[in-house]
Amino acid sequence: MYDGIVQELIDEFGRLPGIGPKSAQRIAFHILQTPSFDVARLAVLLTEIRERVKFCEICGNVSEQDRCAICRDPRRNPELICVVEDAKDVAAIERTREFRGLYHVLGGAISPIAGVGPDDLRVAQLMTRLADGTVQEVILATNPNLEGEATASYLSRLLTSMEITVSRLASGLPVGGDLEYADEVTLGRAFEGRRRL
Amino acid sequence: MYDGIVQELIDEFGRLPGIGPKSAQRIAFHILQTPSFDVARLAVLLTEIRERVKFCEICGNVSEQDRCAICRDPRRNPELICVVEDAKDVAAIERTREFRGLYHVLGGAISPIAGVGPDDLRVAQLMTRLADGTVQEVILATNPNLEGEATASYLSRLLTSMEITVSRLASGLPVGGDLEYADEVTLGRAFEGRRRL
Repeated sequence: MYDGIVQELIDEFGRLPGIGPKSAQRIAFHILQTPSFDVARLAVLLTEIRERVKFCEICGNVSEQDRCAICRDPRRNPELICVVEDAKDVAAIERTREFRGLYHVLGGAISPIAGVGPDDLRVAQLMTRLADGTVQEVILATNPNLEGEATASYLSRLLTSMEITVSRLASGLPVGGDLEYADEVTLGRAFEGRRRL
Repeated sequence: MYDGIVQELIDEFGRLPGIGPKSAQRIAFHILQTPSFDVARLAVLLTEIRERVKFCEICGNVSEQDRCAICRDPRRNPELICVVEDAKDVAAIERTREFRGLYHVLGGAISPIAGVGPDDLRVAQLMTRLADGTVQEVILATNPNLEGEATASYLSRLLTSMEITVSRLASGLPVGGDLEYADEVTLGRAFEGRRRL
């Protein structure tokens, strides 16, 4: 469609998740036509990101050091571990400012269809962390979908023999949502988990 | 939210048009976690794009040479010039494979609100191209919105004194669209421009 490099840049942006051909074109032209956009900076970040970012040796969160900022923070409660699928989930939970414990990033969820089993996740590392008896509660915050539920129930069974409280994030109606538009499963969960006022 | 460079990359992607904070995060993690994504290639393209891409000295389209592929193509009809606002519009029209003439990219549209007047656009260059009498028809393909219409009517007045046919792309119902959902202005245009069958 375009001469050489413009099309190449459009194609390259189009390979990123959530960017269709139209958005990719818009981005390429933005970069081309906006002098204030610091293209060199983006290029440098892209070049360096994989070298500079490692995964925290304790929890598996992204980090530029061997241990992530959360694991290094002495104010966090080491008796509480929140188990999530992905580092993005850590960021989502941090935004709530509700949780002051530590995390454990599994790196995915159990999915027989995708061929992901417990051995492909950071399950053994979790068990090692729990071995010294510091942790009192494990909050299973995997996604409320098929794979996430399967992972949570697998971990929950694995932890029954230990003297640790195991909990799961509540499912229910999203705050600000509309009952009318809730799907049956969510509405069913909301009934199941109803609380006495 | 994240340690250093991860957040920097997310912020940088978030500065691109059409990419919100969630998409930016998704893209940054994709780049971080997908070994098959050729991050070096994207970085090189970003570094080189502004150096390598110029604008065609004749029509203003993007090009890696002084003259763009369309202006260099001897099979294109030099008697026909299609005037568009942006290089992206050239690509959109090329996709239709309906037009075999040449283009003229204005680099925007007249907008008193945004402070863009005819002198900020490639209007003088258009007049120079028309001076030698080769061009028989100018098709005004500026956008069917306020600024595009103003630009088209300005150019149309400018060209009345010359022996050149001036035309405007038809406005009407989009093909595959639904009459019920058409806005009044579009529907009004569709009536105005109705054709005898």
